[in-house]
Amino acid sequence: MGVFRFQVAVSLDGYVAGPRQSEEDPLGVGGMRLHEWIFGLEAWRKQQGLDGGEINASTPVIEEAQSNVGAVVMGRNMFGGGPGAWREDPPWNGWWGDDPPFHVPVFVLTHHPRQPLEMEGGTTFVFVTDGIGSALERAKRAAGERDVVLGGGANVIQQYLAAGLIDGFELHIVPVLLGDGERLLAHIGQIEVEQVRVIEAPGVTHIKYRVATR
Amino acid sequence: MGVFRFQVAVSLDGYVAGPRQSEEDPLGVGGMRLHEWIFGLEAWRKQQGLDGGEINASTPVIEEAQSNVGAVVMGRNMFGGGPGAWREDPPWNGWWGDDPPFHVPVFVLTHHPRQPLEMEGGTTFVFVTDGIGSALERAKRAAGERDVVLGGGANVIQQYLAAGLIDGFELHIVPVLLGDGERLLAHIGQIEVEQVRVIEAPGVTHIKYRVATR
Repeated sequence: MGVFRFQVAVSLDGYVAGPRQSEEDPLGVGGMRLHEWIFGLEAWRKQQGLDGGEINASTPVIEEAQSNVGAVVMGRNMFGGGPGAWREDPPWNGWWGDDPPFHVPVFVLTHHPRQPLEMEGGTTFVFVTDGIGSALERAKRAAGERDVVLGGGANVIQQYLAAGLIDGFELHIVPVLLGDGERLLAHIGQIEVEQVRVIEAPGVTHIKYRVATR
Repeated sequence: MGVFRFQVAVSLDGYVAGPRQSEEDPLGVGGMRLHEWIFGLEAWRKQQGLDGGEINASTPVIEEAQSNVGAVVMGRNMFGGGPGAWREDPPWNGWWGDDPPFHVPVFVLTHHPRQPLEMEGGTTFVFVTDGIGSALERAKRAAGERDVVLGGGANVIQQYLAAGLIDGFELHIVPVLLGDGERLLAHIGQIEVEQVRVIEAPGVTHIKYRVATR
């Protein structure tokens, strides 16, 4: 039986995006700095269809995060947000390109009903309008024995944590102070976590947590 | 030349104390859980004058934090807060006992002028009323070639970080979510940090940071 998990890069002061987020700048001021440790990695570049890149202590973390994934759940902003995002003629297919890097069914939480969208490479976006519990159930069915990965954003992660539905997560703690922005671990109520393992890597610390069952 | 540094235990959601702090409960609800990893360690117990205890991956972290210390700076609440704390007859000598675990000069930030207080074992509390810069200068003079350690609390740490006076710090990141309380890394403005080293230990992750000079 798979687990339901997420991984996210977070600043040392707890933000997943900097201040003044906008459509043009969804990561906010300084938010891109949270992801610099990953762009040069071969393990990440390969998933994006890019050649080259380096191998370091983060590599097994990325490989593990990418393995055994049977389905993905994400919020609508992560599929491709913005006010023009729901036009159907010509249809908006998100910002992941024709061959999105998921290669499994992706359940998108939204209030806009829409037919499933089959992309190249095995990714199908399925739009779910009846809530986070339903999206997770459908994703688990699609994933079978494999894991369901929660893509984000932060508010969707918070909803699933608060509902007690997450089994575990990994934080990539980046030595950057954003000062303000979108906090990850807020509005989640009382949950108990255990530290599973820690990996020191260049410019980032990876810590994996298990959520204790209630 | 020594450095000016601090170390502090912080919850995964960034708090050094839980909600509803009071004189009776200075760590707030759940705040004591931030320190459970340290109480059983021989390295910590020895410093408190206690026998026994265990050795684990946190041991070198504690030993390093305790070594090469020439002076300490702390806020008045850490010396021994509360409204009755400044009585002089009989004099209130803080809550560290007759033989405080510092064994060096300790500069206490306060608005109440008071003569230095010499304790057993080499600790002298010196009360500084002319600001954080003055306290640090006096501590550096007292420390000579050794380090000056900033004891806390969080608001004093924030003032020194915001003033650009800290050289480095170590966070003990504890797998506990407090939900609310006293945040550590807030109100500190723009500072740049570098990750120096990471240690995985039972129930805690130790991450050491250097503050980049401006």
